[in-house]
Formats: sequence, structure tokens, C-alpha cells
Amino acid sequence: MNKKPVNGMRDILPEEMAVRNRVLSVIRDCYTSFGFNEIETPVCESIENLTGKLGGENEKLIFKIMKRGEKLDIAGAKSENDLADSGLRYDLTLPLSRYYANHQAELPKPFKALQIGPVFRADRPQKGRFREFYQCDIDILGEPGILAETELILATSTALSRLGFGNVTVRLNDRRLLKAMALQSGFPEAALPEIFIILDKLDKIGLSGVKEELIQEGYTEESADHCLSFFEAAAGKDTTEALAAFKTLLSGAAEENVIRDLQEIVSTLYDLLPDGFSLAFDPSLVRGMGYYTGPIFEIAVPEFNSSVGGGGRYDEMIGRFSGVQVPACGFSIGFERIVSILTERKTSEAEEEKTAVLMEKGLSPEKRNEVMKKAMEAREKGATVLVLNMAKNRRFQKEQLEQAGYTKITEVYENPLN
Amino acid sequence: MNKKPVNGMRDILPEEMAVRNRVLSVIRDCYTSFGFNEIETPVCESIENLTGKLGGENEKLIFKIMKRGEKLDIAGAKSENDLADSGLRYDLTLPLSRYYANHQAELPKPFKALQIGPVFRADRPQKGRFREFYQCDIDILGEPGILAETELILATSTALSRLGFGNVTVRLNDRRLLKAMALQSGFPEAALPEIFIILDKLDKIGLSGVKEELIQEGYTEESADHCLSFFEAAAGKDTTEALAAFKTLLSGAAEENVIRDLQEIVSTLYDLLPDGFSLAFDPSLVRGMGYYTGPIFEIAVPEFNSSVGGGGRYDEMIGRFSGVQVPACGFSIGFERIVSILTERKTSEAEEEKTAVLMEKGLSPEKRNEVMKKAMEAREKGATVLVLNMAKNRRFQKEQLEQAGYTKITEVYENPLN
Repeated sequence: MNKKPVNGMRDILPEEMAVRNRVLSVIRDCYTSFGFNEIETPVCESIENLTGKLGGENEKLIFKIMKRGEKLDIAGAKSENDLADSGLRYDLTLPLSRYYANHQAELPKPFKALQIGPVFRADRPQKGRFREFYQCDIDILGEPGILAETELILATSTALSRLGFGNVTVRLNDRRLLKAMALQSGFPEAALPEIFIILDKLDKIGLSGVKEELIQEGYTEESADHCLSFFEAAAGKDTTEALAAFKTLLSGAAEENVIRDLQEIVSTLYDLLPDGFSLAFDPSLVRGMGYYTGPIFEIAVPEFNSSVGGGGRYDEMIGRFSGVQVPACGFSIGFERIVSILTERKTSEAEEEKTAVLMEKGLSPEKRNEVMKKAMEAREKGATVLVLNMAKNRRFQKEQLEQAGYTKITEVYENPLN
Repeated sequence: MNKKPVNGMRDILPEEMAVRNRVLSVIRDCYTSFGFNEIETPVCESIENLTGKLGGENEKLIFKIMKRGEKLDIAGAKSENDLADSGLRYDLTLPLSRYYANHQAELPKPFKALQIGPVFRADRPQKGRFREFYQCDIDILGEPGILAETELILATSTALSRLGFGNVTVRLNDRRLLKAMALQSGFPEAALPEIFIILDKLDKIGLSGVKEELIQEGYTEESADHCLSFFEAAAGKDTTEALAAFKTLLSGAAEENVIRDLQEIVSTLYDLLPDGFSLAFDPSLVRGMGYYTGPIFEIAVPEFNSSVGGGGRYDEMIGRFSGVQVPACGFSIGFERIVSILTERKTSEAEEEKTAVLMEKGLSPEKRNEVMKKAMEAREKGATVLVLNMAKNRRFQKEQLEQAGYTKITEVYENPLN
């Protein structure tokens, strides 16, 4: 038998589990106060859904589950998909879309969903990245207006604030602006996904790096320059000025509505976001997934140089399951990243008192009963009481208990005066 | 795309999810107060562990996960196990044993573990039985004495009591007594698993039914009669009398120790169990899994004619992973059964007030801001506030909200007097 977890997955020790549970409890309470309803879907999805081109690169990383019994024809199988009938989900957005298409009639409209659970990607294992990890998503389905975006950004920011995060910027952009920018610059529509991937690198390689890469990939210098002029127009400006600049550059009425909505999201949230949180238009924000159709957002915590959440509007996904388009917008909080930041911080929580009672070996049944009765009384009052037999190496046992947070350790002897 | 969940698995709707979360929160608080530490293992285990003969019948029900990339050789594969490198866990006891063997040095001794999570069995789908379901286990590893059994039974009973269960009997037996009974009756040791399966039916088919089946399976009438004489000796007696009768019938010193321990578990818990809970020796209790080595127990709720939990001692399992035997004892609470009982009961919880605010279409940004600000203030104080755009069919919208537990519904208009 093999005592290691499967490659790329991991066991969670009690100390980290306590952090995880605390984070989940804060997040759950916060989202519930916004009227989100928790739901759950199976960790398995049918193979046709997982390979239906909604998952982008994640579809290359699916753990596939083999057919069973008569349905499994090993000799006749030619490809993987002849052998598999389902697989482990790679995110929570695809299952939610399926769920909503399946249960729409039983759900309120709009439906505010909260999902917490593991997802799976057969990525190359590396430090801090695992093949099974938790996602924690909120989504608003059936609300076409910016009330969805503002509530999602507000709920996520509030949860992060309650977890002790500050100095946080929420970056906001819109896929429709990115698209309009790129088309006006003369890039062909079919090239947009590739263009977006290159634009996404602006943070890292700067304007000149992006221009170089665009030309390297065979696009004209003229298109590259035109596209980059948008970013130059926005650089160093605050949100209102940057949006005004975009409005001048993109003269279409559709784009004007988009810009007005972004401005309204920002001004609505200006007053409402928790201390230390700000929201800013950032035309270089792209977000990886192909399914976004409107506003997109991402939360960056500069001191950790990483994103702790992101999301956006995906109005065309649920229709893939039900045939009827349903407006949808979601925000995924970076649960594992948050846990690892909080674990490193080792925030000394004001812990409640925990008591351990060590019983001498050979204690009489009467005395043991008495100990357990007192323990039960304290537990009924909400205390944590650990009842143990005394170990031979009592000093080591007590050290271990202190390490585990037991602030009060009592020893019980049959004859205390002996 | 397929909008149904995979065959035999299911989506959980918000109403049931609320019950599940409430049950989990009660269980988690209760077990934590006994000093159990929550941990988590991956939902996947390596295929050699899952097929290592520790899972009994469950090993026939494994969802196997296909190898990936170069390791997957479809043309050269002869059997399922050539194609799979892992699978979904069928219980939480096997992963816990692996976990303990892997992390023993980092864990306190004894280690009190709490695990909550989904397990998977490719059973034939049927009403109320699903292929993915939650288990909720507590285990004490490294404690050889009956302190483990008593704490496990006490913690589980306390959790059930807090969930509103009463009129509950905990049945107690010991695998070593079953074995001694069967060997003294003249059954061959190799036949014990089969004998136990037949004895397990005593509840349903009675003494005469069991005798008939034993003879049908080719055992002698003499053996059958001798074995059943044990049950006759215990029938109608209370625990102390029944154990005394067994002590007379089984004269070995080893069995005397077992009987003394069972008596002590019962007398220790007599005073400590919550109101409505009792513990009784029941020689017909068998429990399915082959790995039990000592005391076994099961909690029956007669009004629902079903078991809501069970467990026992399994001292030889961790050694399969680490090479060193570690005493172990666990109790699994029937989470799904409990949720379905509580959902049927529809216990009307004293719910906190939930407020929904409906905003007129075309409300000015200023007014919307005001609404959202007030909502945030109420949420900060712990209230649930759902902010929505008013639907065209406002009456239907309000009905839906009332159904979802919104006791207070406010409408906001730009000009309230119009």
C-alpha cells in the first residue's frame, strides 16, 4: 500500500484546516448576508460537457473517469473518449451553467448562487499549485444590468476586508471595449483571442514589449501602434478621465453605453467599498477565459504580487445548455491563495480556552466517570475539552498539547496526595 | 451540452443545502468541543490503495481515473488496471489510515481526527441512494483502550441529540465475541465472513430463519443450534445479564476481558449519554466491513427504521500502510440519512429576519447608491439584505421572495408619492 497522496494532490493538516475553515466561515457569512444561496453540484461532469469547448486550455487538463461494466470496451477502444464517460470538473462555472439550465424553474430569478468546492486540473505539479484545489464562486444569473457587477464586486471586497485584507485594487475592464479597440485597430476578428493574450502581458513587458510581440506574430505596425494608442491615452489618468478618453477614441453608440456602465459601476462603488479598497478602470485587463462577454474584473493585492480573485459577465454560456440565453455574471475568490497568505501571516487569533485532561493509568471507573461527566458539562457550555490517558512521557505529551493550543492542562490521579 | 448531472449523482438545491450546512455546523462544533481536529484528504486515491482488499464489496464499485499523456497506452492495455492510475475514494477510513501513516510524526498522539467529505460508489442508482454522498467520520488513532470507544459514542450521541434526535439506541458488540461464538459452535474459521453475513439477518428473519439459512448453506444443524443458543441466552435480558450469560458460555480468559470492557463502556456511558439515548449489548450486531477487530457499534433510530451511524475498532489497518500497527477506532455518522430525515421533518427554524429591497426600474444613480449604502450598513450588523431590480411581474417576484424566507420586502421608488 502507498502512503503518499496521489501525484499533485495533497493532505491537509489540522493547522491549515483550521485556517481554511475560518476563511470559509467568514466568506459564507458575508455572501449569505448579500442574499447568495449556497448550492452544490457533483465533482463529476459528463465528458461531453467537459470537452464542449467552454473550458479553453483547461480542457487539456481533465481527469477522465473510465466507463464501467459492459460499457467499457477496451479491445474496441481507439481513443480516450471511447473509454471515458465522465471526468472531474475543472471549474465551478460550467457546472453552475448546467445546474441553472436544469433547475431554472425551481430557482428564484435572478438567482444569486454561492458555490464552494474542489476542482481538478491535471497540470504539471509545481510549488504552490496542486491538481485538486478549492474554488469559491458567487454568480448572479438572470440580471442583465450592472446591479450584478456592483453587488459581486462589493460582496467580494467586503469578504476580503473581513479577512483582514486592505491596500487592494479592483481592476475593471469590458470585453466589448477590448474588442472594439482591436477591430478599430484593424486586427481581424478571428485573431482576437491571440491579440488579447498578448495585450494581457502589458503589465510584465510594457508597451514596447507588446508592440514587438504583435509585429513578431505578423500583425502590421500600424495596427499595433493604433491599438497601443488607447493605452497611451489612458495612462496616468484616473478612471473618469481614462473613460472619457476612450469615449473620444471609440465613437460607436454601443461603446458609449459600455463606457457609461463602467463609469456608473465605479461611481456607485466609490462610496461603498470597504476602507483600503479601490476600483479603477484598467484597459489592459483581459482575463483568460474565452466566455466573457461584458465587464471583467480582477482583484490584485500588490503586497503579495498576485491576484486574489476575478470574474466577469458571461451572457452566452447558459444558453449552451438550455437553448435560451440567460444573462450571467460571476466572481471567483482565490481561496487557496488567500489561505496560503493567511497561513504565512500566522495571524494570532484570540483563541478560546481549550482544556486537556490527562487521566492517570489505572484510574478507577468511578473517577473516570467523574472526569468525563465534568468534561461533558464544560462542552455543553461551549468549551473544548480533550480527555486523554496520561502517556508514559508526560512532559512530551504536555508539550504537544501546548503546541496544539491547549492552554489549560489538568492531571487527574486516583489519589492526588500520593 | 447535457444539462443533467452524471448518472446517479445529483445537484443540491438551496433549500437542502441550508439544511446540510446547519447539520454540518452542529456536528463540527460538537466534535471540535471533544478535541477532534478536522483534516482533509484528496478525493482521489492511488489505484493500488483502492484495490488493496481493505474495502470489501466497495472495491467492485470504484470510479477509476484514466492515466494521462504518454502513460496511457490504449492499444497495449489488456485490463482496466492497465489504463487507470487512481480512482475516487469509496470511504474516508482508507484515506485516513494512509494519511496517518504518512504524517504520524507531525500529529499529536493519540490523534483525534474529524473528516467531512464526499465519497463515491458506482452502485446501481436507486431511490435515496446516490453515487456521490457525504461521509462524516471521527476516529481516534493511537489509543488502545476503551476511552476511544466511549468518547466516540459520546461525541456522536451528543451531536445527534443537538440535532434533535431522541429515542435512540446505540447497539454494541465485539468482533472477538462473534468469532469466539462461531468457532465454539464448530464453524470453520474460513467460513466466518459468510456466517457473519447470515447472523446479520437475525433482525429480519429471526432465529428460525437464520437456522434454516445456515443449514441451507451446508453447515450442520448442531453448529447452527449451538450458535443460536448464544442469542437465546441473551434474549430478553438487559446488558449486564446478557454479558454475564456470555461470560458463562465463553470460558476463555481473552473473552472475559472483552466482556469486561464492553460492560465498562456501557456503565461509563450510562450516566453520560444525552436524554433519550441508551446503549445496549446486542450480540447480533455484525457490521459489514471486514477490517473490524474489536468493539463495533451502530446507532438505530427506530422511528425511521434505519441506522444513522456506525463504527468500531480496526487495529490492523494503519499497519498496512506504515508497517507498524496503530490502534484505531472510528465512528461514521450517517450524514445523508440525517439530512433526509431533517428535510422531511421540515423543522421550522427560528430564522433571522431577511430583507429584500426592490428598486424601481430607472431609479437615479443617487437613489440606487442610497439603497446600497443602507443595505451595506444592515449587512455589517449581520442582517441578510437582498438588493434586486423590480421585476415586471412584481406580485410574482414578491411571492417567490416570501417563499425563499424574505420576511421583509421593501420597494423603492424615485418619487414615492407618484
